[in-house]
Amino acid sequence: MTGTVPVSSVLIVGTGLMGTSLGLALQARGVAIYLTDRDPTLARTAAELGAGTDQPPTEPVDLAVIAVPPTAVAAVLADLQGKQLAAAYTDLASTKAHIHAEVARLGADPASFVGGHPMAGRERSGPGSARGDLFEGRPWVLTPTGQTAPAALATVQAVVALTGATPYLMAPSEHDHAVAVVSHAPHLVAALVAARLADAEPAVLALAGPGVRDITRVAAGDPALWREILATNSPAVAAILAAVGADLAAVGAELANPGPVPPAALTATVDALTRGNRGVARIPGKHGTPPARYATVPVVLDDRPGQLAALFAAAGAAGINIEDVRIEHSPGQPVGLVELDVRPEAADPLAAALRAGGWIVHR
Amino acid sequence: MTGTVPVSSVLIVGTGLMGTSLGLALQARGVAIYLTDRDPTLARTAAELGAGTDQPPTEPVDLAVIAVPPTAVAAVLADLQGKQLAAAYTDLASTKAHIHAEVARLGADPASFVGGHPMAGRERSGPGSARGDLFEGRPWVLTPTGQTAPAALATVQAVVALTGATPYLMAPSEHDHAVAVVSHAPHLVAALVAARLADAEPAVLALAGPGVRDITRVAAGDPALWREILATNSPAVAAILAAVGADLAAVGAELANPGPVPPAALTATVDALTRGNRGVARIPGKHGTPPARYATVPVVLDDRPGQLAALFAAAGAAGINIEDVRIEHSPGQPVGLVELDVRPEAADPLAAALRAGGWIVHR
Repeated sequence: MTGTVPVSSVLIVGTGLMGTSLGLALQARGVAIYLTDRDPTLARTAAELGAGTDQPPTEPVDLAVIAVPPTAVAAVLADLQGKQLAAAYTDLASTKAHIHAEVARLGADPASFVGGHPMAGRERSGPGSARGDLFEGRPWVLTPTGQTAPAALATVQAVVALTGATPYLMAPSEHDHAVAVVSHAPHLVAALVAARLADAEPAVLALAGPGVRDITRVAAGDPALWREILATNSPAVAAILAAVGADLAAVGAELANPGPVPPAALTATVDALTRGNRGVARIPGKHGTPPARYATVPVVLDDRPGQLAALFAAAGAAGINIEDVRIEHSPGQPVGLVELDVRPEAADPLAAALRAGGWIVHR
Repeated sequence: MTGTVPVSSVLIVGTGLMGTSLGLALQARGVAIYLTDRDPTLARTAAELGAGTDQPPTEPVDLAVIAVPPTAVAAVLADLQGKQLAAAYTDLASTKAHIHAEVARLGADPASFVGGHPMAGRERSGPGSARGDLFEGRPWVLTPTGQTAPAALATVQAVVALTGATPYLMAPSEHDHAVAVVSHAPHLVAALVAARLADAEPAVLALAGPGVRDITRVAAGDPALWREILATNSPAVAAILAAVGADLAAVGAELANPGPVPPAALTATVDALTRGNRGVARIPGKHGTPPARYATVPVVLDDRPGQLAALFAAAGAAGINIEDVRIEHSPGQPVGLVELDVRPEAADPLAAALRAGGWIVHR
């Protein structure tokens, strides 16, 4: 279960959600974890949660993980390197080019530092929200440069492997562009959609369905953290926002009319919707394949204890693996709809098995 | 199981997803359903799926439901009224003020017509995607006006009740503003985010996580249908887009800099993120209450048959009702994480029961 090089001790600087989650993950794999935070009560909390000890290490550790906000990473790195606290260093921040530039500007050692960014997180923050499985199955980008020592990279790769994450090696600027596209700009735009609901009438909000709920879910994220992320990736995010803004202006211009417009006049709108179709189809699904790989079996059930258990027991008895499941929200109604995603060849057998058991299946 | 007035026969004009789903729902409640479509093969398909008969009614029906694209509703209404095919009429289109205006313009009878819009739908279309439970627990807006005959409204309300939907009475323009806020503008903005992925490098897409997946899910919708919806609700949608565009421009101006910007300079960005927090907190959750009402119990499980069944059986054996469930996507990994949402007081007992059964619970 260990990586290619042995890692026995890790210092984690910053015990928020990410640092504490990493401590939980590595501690469970037998690595000695030392926790520290600018706020000692947070390090104490993380230690009490089982993420490691909040006592300092007595000798240099194999790796120091800098789990602080993006703008503080380089200064913390320089400080730790000055104290020779670790053989190698990495960070967990969501932006990378800015940090590599700061490392150079502060004269920190670029050889022992490997930039890192696990693509994991939660809408909640703080050590109390940490989870040891936070990184399992998630991409974890590493940004070695021409100055990176191979031994430092090997140590960081071993730690990533211990968490169950999948490492991706990228240039810092390549990483920053990628996360601007798939994370930072989408987050910001989702927040702008959610902002329209901040002052909406209750009668308007009563009509909210699963669509707007999905679109705005991430907008519950911490504005202070996102301010840091956006500030340190501003050029890449601004480029995506400009492209979205240009599309928005073109669509808005077609729709901005005192009355209804002829559908045939909406060429820019249809173009944007069509590109949206193409884009969503290109997002890799579970197991790295498109969502279309699965077939959906919708089942009606009452909202009372035991119904889901009985449903999944019936699927299990039929020997069918459920790949994904969605429970559709039904405001004010006791009846729910569960959508079971299965491999296409399993859909008809599952529907037949459930119907035979008395379930209402819509397929 | 019937509404306040008896409804024994319904004519459905247009057998796409919505019309066919309504046929399935009403047929199951004992209503005689007559199906017709401009394309007779679609009506035949809907009939074969059990949504009714594709033969014409021999006498006037209680209600004719016009399930055609928004721009065609008023003309179809005038035609049906001219043939005296029904005692009352309604439609299912996503926009309403435009239709009431067209009804007046064409000289159709406003007394027997009640505008309607069930807040239900799918990313897929056509009779083959129809489901009899599509409307269960969903809001269904009705837009009676001062000209509407009470008997027509009562008939439509009875049909809505038969589907399990919850009726909301609103003015047409009030409806159009509400759906622009919670559906039409969010859909368009989600499509613009998804459009950024249409030409993205595979390495960029590999970093896509649950956030962008949720944000862009609706962008798989049919551009031709959305063109009609947006065209007939253009003033209301344009107003929301203008507000989003103004926010986007303010945020973009703060971020548009050749290098990183000081976080403290991002005042408009933080304001938008904070309003986004407020907005997402105001969306009603299941049972009309905020999502924060539930506590989450995360459980790790292997991606093989029977695991979910065993998990839900364990929850059921503990007498605990699962309110919602999410399976987190783990590209290329055999380990999955299931998040079970339960009432707060049930979270600790559930975690204890699962742990006692050998499950890995992160709580």
